[in-house]
Amino acid sequence: MRDHHIDAVFITTEADFRYFTGFQTRFWESPTRPWYLIIPAEKPPLAVIPQIGAPLFENQSQWDFRSWVAPDYDDDGVSLLASSFRDLLFSGAKIGVPSSLETHLRMPLQDFDHLKRSLDMAFLGDENIVKKIRAVKSEIEISKISSACQIAERAFSRMDEIAQIGIPLSQVFRDFQRLCLEEGADYVPYLAGAAGKDGYEDVISPANDTPLKSGDILMLDTGLVWDGYFCDFNRNFAIGDVSDDAFHAHQKLLNATQIAFDHIRPGVKISEIFAILHEFISPEVDPKSLGRFGHGLGMQLTEGVSIIPDDATPCVKNMVLTLEPSIAVHSGKIIVHEEDLYVDETGAHWLTNPYKELKIL
Amino acid sequence: MRDHHIDAVFITTEADFRYFTGFQTRFWESPTRPWYLIIPAEKPPLAVIPQIGAPLFENQSQWDFRSWVAPDYDDDGVSLLASSFRDLLFSGAKIGVPSSLETHLRMPLQDFDHLKRSLDMAFLGDENIVKKIRAVKSEIEISKISSACQIAERAFSRMDEIAQIGIPLSQVFRDFQRLCLEEGADYVPYLAGAAGKDGYEDVISPANDTPLKSGDILMLDTGLVWDGYFCDFNRNFAIGDVSDDAFHAHQKLLNATQIAFDHIRPGVKISEIFAILHEFISPEVDPKSLGRFGHGLGMQLTEGVSIIPDDATPCVKNMVLTLEPSIAVHSGKIIVHEEDLYVDETGAHWLTNPYKELKIL
Repeated sequence: MRDHHIDAVFITTEADFRYFTGFQTRFWESPTRPWYLIIPAEKPPLAVIPQIGAPLFENQSQWDFRSWVAPDYDDDGVSLLASSFRDLLFSGAKIGVPSSLETHLRMPLQDFDHLKRSLDMAFLGDENIVKKIRAVKSEIEISKISSACQIAERAFSRMDEIAQIGIPLSQVFRDFQRLCLEEGADYVPYLAGAAGKDGYEDVISPANDTPLKSGDILMLDTGLVWDGYFCDFNRNFAIGDVSDDAFHAHQKLLNATQIAFDHIRPGVKISEIFAILHEFISPEVDPKSLGRFGHGLGMQLTEGVSIIPDDATPCVKNMVLTLEPSIAVHSGKIIVHEEDLYVDETGAHWLTNPYKELKIL
Repeated sequence: MRDHHIDAVFITTEADFRYFTGFQTRFWESPTRPWYLIIPAEKPPLAVIPQIGAPLFENQSQWDFRSWVAPDYDDDGVSLLASSFRDLLFSGAKIGVPSSLETHLRMPLQDFDHLKRSLDMAFLGDENIVKKIRAVKSEIEISKISSACQIAERAFSRMDEIAQIGIPLSQVFRDFQRLCLEEGADYVPYLAGAAGKDGYEDVISPANDTPLKSGDILMLDTGLVWDGYFCDFNRNFAIGDVSDDAFHAHQKLLNATQIAFDHIRPGVKISEIFAILHEFISPEVDPKSLGRFGHGLGMQLTEGVSIIPDDATPCVKNMVLTLEPSIAVHSGKIIVHEEDLYVDETGAHWLTNPYKELKIL
């Protein structure tokens, strides 16, 4: 904050709030109540929260808080928030608010406008301070992500219990989430997937009731949570006999992922990882048309860096990344593969058990 | 829009986007990509979305869309969004953005600032147009919420399979989510709960590893999703013998809920529902200190009205509500009970199977 002449950072979203306070609840699923944290450069943080969260905050966090009875249609915490800013800071203070890619302000716009008007302070971007801090994990964070990955691995290893010809994809989705819970997930915030001959059209679809059929490539991509941390990886499966094209395309993704993994060490730029994957998989395709081939991972399903040609961030020790290359099999059909890793002084280390070959169900 | 002299509404959040487009994906769990929808007063809607969502949007929605390859560090869809506004609207147009309680803008603040600077249009609040439309459900929406409720009821009816003395609360949480999936939930975005002698301190805590013990009141509060719609209700259970105080406090909540239910019909104000619950349960307590006793329900765990003294919204046909009164048992301990209902011409109808008596496990 000092380097950027910022006097405080203002936090409103779940992961940032939890990162700096330890406050962990699934209650953010309800959009009704805002939760605020002020982190001054020169003083301890202060949370301004709905009264419903006071007992839990007191149990979980070392920081002071103030609370109001929410929702309040006349003043939903805004005057309390404004007076808290005034007590902690000074006229003309510069407040950094996460404002760039991947961020949003989780408070009603009318309340933010009211707050700004009632304070003699400037609200600016946070110069990505929060994003940069969160991109580098502690050992404890890495071990939690590792636990999440291993839970998902155990669920994936039981796929033959739940997926075979004739079973609707929607049933596979339900059963896979059940396996994740049985294997120790706290909950399963993300599951996407698809099944089709030679691959699928996209990787973000919800399940439909179409039964699996011989020749399908079935893909499940999960972000389960263990103690507040995500894994994010997928596995492809062959339902009976799949085409040689699909098999070889999938194998190419596995090989590309291993080659990119082997290249990673501190100082290597994220854009270089993209270039390696692109060169190996589809050098003939405009790299700007391909989307991203992986990203940061932690308290959110996706966070931090993006493996795209324009991300020149150097890898550093204790970054956690996913490698997620895709390949076009036929017109309109793709296959995507994803693994998770962390970086230390010597290079990359798998958090997943890297997939060796398309498993047949 | 015409009544409020608004020329278009600008949508950025999951539920609003899905409501107006049919676009359904769990991919919103990733914070990386923004999704935009412009709804002009006089023309069909236009979506402006990341390319990764194009195939799914095309399958699910009748509306046109434009897409860009996201994330793009130089211009993450902002110039495409601006040109879309220009193509659909006119200089001086007034754009309504959901800005009041329960809303936020799901796009980077720097991109919103950039968008506003690049357009000769005014961004204002939406006069709660979106909130008011969504508060009144269609018959199909009510039937989906009903399905979600009945799935949760079946899971609650199997509690004796998973909860008994000695089992850690964290294991009960995992197993209850598993039961929800087995009974047909698509996924379980929300589960909170607690267990303790004579009640609990709050209703938003995640699970801990403390084993259940005789005399505990165990409470689970779930928001599971079926086809994009939530239920939101809880059940309390007695672990072995509980105190008479806890039993009677719980029974008082059940009775209060039934009395409030019987009073609901079109035209009754939400604040009257609060008053009935307050009068029956705890007339000696300042109503302003009690938080809310229920809320609207639908595509989100909580949405729309809040059952508080200040909400003068009249009940109308096809509103869906939860009744969620709480009672203090001893100093610091509370019990909360929650049921779901919808309103028609004649009064309220249960979506849950109203709880009759504290079940003993």
